[in-house]
Amino acid sequence: MTGANLFFKCENFQRVGAFKYRGATNAVQKLSAEEAQNGVVTHSSGNHAQALALAASIQKIPAYIVVPENAPKSKIGAVKSYGGIITFCEATLEARESTVAKVIKQTGAKLIHPYDNPDIIAGQGTAAKELIWEIGNLDIVVAPVGGGGLLSGTAIATKSIFPETIVYGAEPELANDAQLSFHSKTLIPSNYPNTIADGLRTSLSELTLSIILKYVDDIMTAKEETIVKAMQIIWQRMKIIVEPSAAVPLAIILDNPELFEKKSVGIIISGGNVDFDNLPF
Amino acid sequence: MTGANLFFKCENFQRVGAFKYRGATNAVQKLSAEEAQNGVVTHSSGNHAQALALAASIQKIPAYIVVPENAPKSKIGAVKSYGGIITFCEATLEARESTVAKVIKQTGAKLIHPYDNPDIIAGQGTAAKELIWEIGNLDIVVAPVGGGGLLSGTAIATKSIFPETIVYGAEPELANDAQLSFHSKTLIPSNYPNTIADGLRTSLSELTLSIILKYVDDIMTAKEETIVKAMQIIWQRMKIIVEPSAAVPLAIILDNPELFEKKSVGIIISGGNVDFDNLPF
Repeated sequence: MTGANLFFKCENFQRVGAFKYRGATNAVQKLSAEEAQNGVVTHSSGNHAQALALAASIQKIPAYIVVPENAPKSKIGAVKSYGGIITFCEATLEARESTVAKVIKQTGAKLIHPYDNPDIIAGQGTAAKELIWEIGNLDIVVAPVGGGGLLSGTAIATKSIFPETIVYGAEPELANDAQLSFHSKTLIPSNYPNTIADGLRTSLSELTLSIILKYVDDIMTAKEETIVKAMQIIWQRMKIIVEPSAAVPLAIILDNPELFEKKSVGIIISGGNVDFDNLPF
Repeated sequence: MTGANLFFKCENFQRVGAFKYRGATNAVQKLSAEEAQNGVVTHSSGNHAQALALAASIQKIPAYIVVPENAPKSKIGAVKSYGGIITFCEATLEARESTVAKVIKQTGAKLIHPYDNPDIIAGQGTAAKELIWEIGNLDIVVAPVGGGGLLSGTAIATKSIFPETIVYGAEPELANDAQLSFHSKTLIPSNYPNTIADGLRTSLSELTLSIILKYVDDIMTAKEETIVKAMQIIWQRMKIIVEPSAAVPLAIILDNPELFEKKSVGIIISGGNVDFDNLPF
C-alpha cells in the first residue's frame, strides 16, 4: 500500500495502553529511597497520569495526580483504578502548576514531569531499542512528537545503535510547534490546537528540543484528514486499536510515499486509548 | 476480571481477517490437479468467500463466488479485491443453490462448501492445534459455533492432543440451533435470527453435527447484551478489533464464571471483520 516495508512497535499493547508506562516505570525505579519515600506527583489527565499511578503503586509509593476539573470522567476513573490520588484544579496551566506546588509542599512528593525528565526520556527510548533489536537495521524510524519525550528517547536509542538510521518526528499540521521549533532552533510553544491527535498538543521543553536538534533528522507534519485515514487503515487492515496520535507516523508516510519507498521503516505506535463514543469514522 | 487464565488465538490477525482462510487454503490445496483445473465455487457473502477467493488466486485457479443481490458493497468489494469472480443471485437459499449449480454446469468448478467439507474442517482445526502447541495443556477450549466447521476442527484437534481438555461451543442465545441440535442429537436448522453475532446465524450440517456430538462436551449460549459487553472489553482492554461473533466465547465466560474459575482457557477469536458504521457501542 505504501511501497515501503513497515514494522510497527505496538505500544497500544503496553500496560496502561501507551508507551508512557516505560518512562514512568524508569523514573520511579530510578528514585533513591529518600526521593521515593513521600511518593510522586504530576499534573496530567492523560496516559502519563495513569502510567505514573501504576508505576508508583507497583513500587508501593503514593502517586498524587493533579487533574483539571473538566477532565473526562473516564480518564479520572482510569487514574483512580491504578491507585492514583487525585487533586482537582482549575483548567489553566497556572492552576495546575500552583496546585502541584501545593501538593509538593504538603506531601514532600517528587515531581515526575511527563517528558521534561531524562529518566522519562530514557524509558520511552526502550520502545525503539526493542524494535531495533527485534528487526535489525532499519532505514528510517518514525515516532510521533508532542512534548518530545518519546521522540527524544527514540532518537537517542536509534542513533546509538545505528547512527545511519534516519529518525523523523511526526506531528499534526495543526500542531506544528515542534516542526517550527526544530527549523528555527528556538522553543516555539504550542497554542494547544484542536487536532484530532490530542496526545500531541503539548509543547517541547528546552531539554527535549535540545535532544531533538541533536539526534532527529527532521520533523514532518500530516493533514488531519490523512491522520483519520491512517487510523482507519490501521484499524481495518491490522485489526488493532490505536489512538489518533499513534496514526500520525503512517499518515506522514501516506502523504510522502517517495521518501519511504522501498525503505524498511520502523513506526512507534504510541498508544491505543480511544474514546469509542467519539470516533472520527 | 473473569477469575480464569485466558489465552486468545487471534484469528482476526489471520489473512482476510478470519480463521476461514485456514480451511479454504487446505481445501484448495487438497484438490487434485484434475479437480482444481476448472476452479472452485461457493455461495457466501462473508469471510469464506474472501478466503476462498484468496486461496484460489494463490493457487492460480479461478474462484466463482455466488453472492446475494443484497450483500453489502464492502463485502462484494473485498471478494473482488482478492480476485473472486462474482455471480449475483436472489437472496434466497434456493436461488443460491440453483445459481451455484448453474455455475458448476457452465465452468466445471468444484464446490467448496464453507463448512460441510472435511478439508475445510481440518484446516479450521489448525488454529486450536497451534494454540495448544504454543500454550501447552489447557483445561478448556471455547470456540464459536455457526455452521460448525470451526468448532468441529477445534474439537478434533484438541481432543487428539489432550483428550481430557474440555471443548465448549459458544453460540448466541438468539441463535441457539446448535445447542438444540446437540442436546436433541438431531439437526435443528437455524431460522437465521437477528443476532449481532452475524457470523453465527447458519445451521450445522449432518457432518458437523456428528463430529460435534462425538468430540464436544457442551454448547453454551450467551445473551446479546453480554456479547456486546465482551466485544467492548476486548476492544478496550486488549486493543484488538474483533467481530461480534468472536466475542461470544468471552461472553459465555462472563456469564458463567463458576465454570471457568482458576482454569486455563483457550479462546478462538474467530475474526475481526467489522462494519465501523454499525458498531453496537
